[in-house]
Amino acid sequence: MSRRSGRKSRVQARAAKGAVSTPYVTRRIGLVSLIDDEAIAIIERNADRILDEIGMEFRGDPDTLDLFKAHGARVEGERVRFDPGWCRDKIKTAPSVFTQHARNPARSIQIGGKAQVYAPSFGPPFVHDMENGRRYATLEDFQNITKLHHQLGAVNHSGGVVVEPVDIPVPLRHLQMAHTHLTMNDKPFMGAVTAPERARDTIEMCKIAMGADFVDENCVLYSVVNTNAPLVMDETMLWALKEYARAGQCTVVSPFVLGGAMSPVSVAATLAQVLAEVMASVALIQLIRPGAPAAFGTFFSPISLKTGAPTFGTPEGTQLQMCAKTLADRLGLPFHSVGGLTASKVPDAQAGYESQAQLMGAALAGVNFIIHATGCLEGLLTTGYEKIVMDADRCAAMQRFVQGVDFSESAQAMEAFSEVEPGGHFLGAQHTQDNFETAFWMGDMSDNGTYEQWAAEGAYWQHDRATARVKQLIEDYEAPAMDAGIREALEEFVARRSREIEGEQP
Amino acid sequence: MSRRSGRKSRVQARAAKGAVSTPYVTRRIGLVSLIDDEAIAIIERNADRILDEIGMEFRGDPDTLDLFKAHGARVEGERVRFDPGWCRDKIKTAPSVFTQHARNPARSIQIGGKAQVYAPSFGPPFVHDMENGRRYATLEDFQNITKLHHQLGAVNHSGGVVVEPVDIPVPLRHLQMAHTHLTMNDKPFMGAVTAPERARDTIEMCKIAMGADFVDENCVLYSVVNTNAPLVMDETMLWALKEYARAGQCTVVSPFVLGGAMSPVSVAATLAQVLAEVMASVALIQLIRPGAPAAFGTFFSPISLKTGAPTFGTPEGTQLQMCAKTLADRLGLPFHSVGGLTASKVPDAQAGYESQAQLMGAALAGVNFIIHATGCLEGLLTTGYEKIVMDADRCAAMQRFVQGVDFSESAQAMEAFSEVEPGGHFLGAQHTQDNFETAFWMGDMSDNGTYEQWAAEGAYWQHDRATARVKQLIEDYEAPAMDAGIREALEEFVARRSREIEGEQP
Repeated sequence: MSRRSGRKSRVQARAAKGAVSTPYVTRRIGLVSLIDDEAIAIIERNADRILDEIGMEFRGDPDTLDLFKAHGARVEGERVRFDPGWCRDKIKTAPSVFTQHARNPARSIQIGGKAQVYAPSFGPPFVHDMENGRRYATLEDFQNITKLHHQLGAVNHSGGVVVEPVDIPVPLRHLQMAHTHLTMNDKPFMGAVTAPERARDTIEMCKIAMGADFVDENCVLYSVVNTNAPLVMDETMLWALKEYARAGQCTVVSPFVLGGAMSPVSVAATLAQVLAEVMASVALIQLIRPGAPAAFGTFFSPISLKTGAPTFGTPEGTQLQMCAKTLADRLGLPFHSVGGLTASKVPDAQAGYESQAQLMGAALAGVNFIIHATGCLEGLLTTGYEKIVMDADRCAAMQRFVQGVDFSESAQAMEAFSEVEPGGHFLGAQHTQDNFETAFWMGDMSDNGTYEQWAAEGAYWQHDRATARVKQLIEDYEAPAMDAGIREALEEFVARRSREIEGEQP
Repeated sequence: MSRRSGRKSRVQARAAKGAVSTPYVTRRIGLVSLIDDEAIAIIERNADRILDEIGMEFRGDPDTLDLFKAHGARVEGERVRFDPGWCRDKIKTAPSVFTQHARNPARSIQIGGKAQVYAPSFGPPFVHDMENGRRYATLEDFQNITKLHHQLGAVNHSGGVVVEPVDIPVPLRHLQMAHTHLTMNDKPFMGAVTAPERARDTIEMCKIAMGADFVDENCVLYSVVNTNAPLVMDETMLWALKEYARAGQCTVVSPFVLGGAMSPVSVAATLAQVLAEVMASVALIQLIRPGAPAAFGTFFSPISLKTGAPTFGTPEGTQLQMCAKTLADRLGLPFHSVGGLTASKVPDAQAGYESQAQLMGAALAGVNFIIHATGCLEGLLTTGYEKIVMDADRCAAMQRFVQGVDFSESAQAMEAFSEVEPGGHFLGAQHTQDNFETAFWMGDMSDNGTYEQWAAEGAYWQHDRATARVKQLIEDYEAPAMDAGIREALEEFVARRSREIEGEQP
């Protein structure tokens, strides 16, 4: 990559600076639904039966069990069973649309309705780039990735654990991560879910950055709680859910399902299980704080029944997502699901095919919050630097797609036909001159030129061009403005809490 | 690639042999439509205005002009103008669904209705593989590619000019191509469109292989005629169209449009132009032989308005395709359009992203005949060997997807929930045991295993695995059965016509 031409780098730098960033995308096309009324009734009835007959376990928190019991659920040990319709009734207080506020108000996003938000991958312990290969991620990687997402216009969110900064002790990571999101990006971000005190710290840091009263009254954090399918919510996730619900912050309940292992080996059965888990968990959120924002999430990866490995970019993955969106709409909940997932270890064609299939499925399903839209490699064990910028380009394409076709009089361009004879060309037509800059979407990461030009420029594969783009973006990065007092207060908070936490360690 | 493990090669060989091939796919999900009734009315009115006020040129054939005139079209020089509704009325005799018969009746396909057919790329002069790079294609490449498509279950068609065999003189190529399709693959194939006598030769060869009476009474060839947008059909295409229409063979009218150059710079205007060209041309087919099978085709690539280069995998490409499918349905014509196109020169991530976006768009649009579904590189200037097997895997995924979700009692698997406790797993459940082999789609070309296993096996990228699979398929190839008399008669025909054509050369 050292031989990148100066010309190309300048072009790429301009493209990066010129990227138009709307805070979120408004879908203007219909939904792709794969489930008809009869099938909806079947799945809803099956979910009700699962909750009634088998129930769900909420582990390690007697208060939760008491709360369920007080409101009429049937509690036996840690198992909670629900009469048909009970959960659906409790969920009614959850808002169907809400705002997650960013530190920069121009970056605040709508969650739900026709809005689509594209967000980074969550959770990988490894990073990969073409020059250094695969390795454990560090805080520097976390910061670099946050810098990239700050600049990529098609990414509407700074995400959460964009990689695990493994050079930071586990009990301190949430402080460094929230600090990075708040200072290096001004888009909204996600809260820690690994322990209740970490959730509290994240909320406190938002209060410093955005004002305590504001945070009390508004959603500034969006946090994902995974059930342990089938039909369990463990202590860690339960406490994080409680902490954010009490604070009026958004909790997404996203059953993590490796299909065939953690659910029966079919889309229809997995749908019923997912619906059951989401209904029981969102009902709990509403018991804790009626009206607290929540969302219906899915993470579904069918396992290969030859090897047991999770698979991505599959037909069933998208089918489940499209059906679940319909079920979420019927509950009046925003829908959260996965974007550009791939099992590939490297930014190769497999990564391209699989990520595009998942992302296009999510866009067409009308997913409101598309997580893992950028950077995924190795089924979320790795975030790829190159993959981030490659995926972001495809996010931009999907965003253009879901905005539908312009049928206005100007777009019909009937006057151009009078101007150009049969067999002629439209390059010089007035309509073309007036519209060419914005008429068609143009990607930053695709090479569309001739073979000869491509060969002369070094015959770079897409991942090579992506390496150059990553470097340029990191070089060009400028931190978003922040009040000096706030910056200092955040640093003080992180330093103080770090000392306290380190003092608590055995 | 020389270090491919024996084990993996055997696994791949098994997968190839075990590939289930249905002759075509029946879509069981709804269509994605991006055009509402109001917009449909606008586009249809604009197309009528274009045909009425500007008209279309049919060049180099006075008989066609006379035919149009005799039926009431307004002819001036080679320009033909049509009263609103005239073309639509003439098109009514075209069948909305028909069969293209293959030499092997088990491979015959339905064109139209809910059927989807996935077919190879058409037209590239170059081939590419990872060991030999990019080079002009030869007859040997044409034959190898035909052998691959014979074995790939997700490919329903042998295609047409899968590559240009440039080592064969132009006037003889059609003979070698038809001979290869007829002897090395038993799926249906496409007719030559480069000259009327070449169309006649192809029809004759089908008569030898399938019987003269059968060919007179049935569609055995499917041929694509491109208009020269805007609003021209040239002499070569016109003569091919006439030849196939007279013989009752299928002609697809597919305007070839580089959007912004050959059409105004918008989807809405391009749609009206495409509709106008298709209506006038299919009307002509029906004047020549009422009831002759025809289809509505599109090939739309927006040009980059920075460089003038065609682009692929774009939002507008899919938008136009989805809208045009709705317009084709309203004409009662089968719809033909593009699959896995990419501008990439190599089987890299760009190729994966772009091809998957185009292919998934085509699948969801309900395209009846998806051309260029496999092998495209460099915007159809090159067919990639590795790309063929990589794309075929994604065709299989899309085919599974469009068949929708199984909501049967068996798929609901309610008994599995009684068997497995919360927090347990379903791997041993009876439902899993009964269904695991066919429950989830599994690709042949994706590596889903662990990083460690992948690294230990050689850290192959997808295109490396594809090289091995191509070699294995070519090694394993067995020609489909053919009656010895027919084989001999075909060879005699090719030899005789070759001598005649060479004698005619100046």
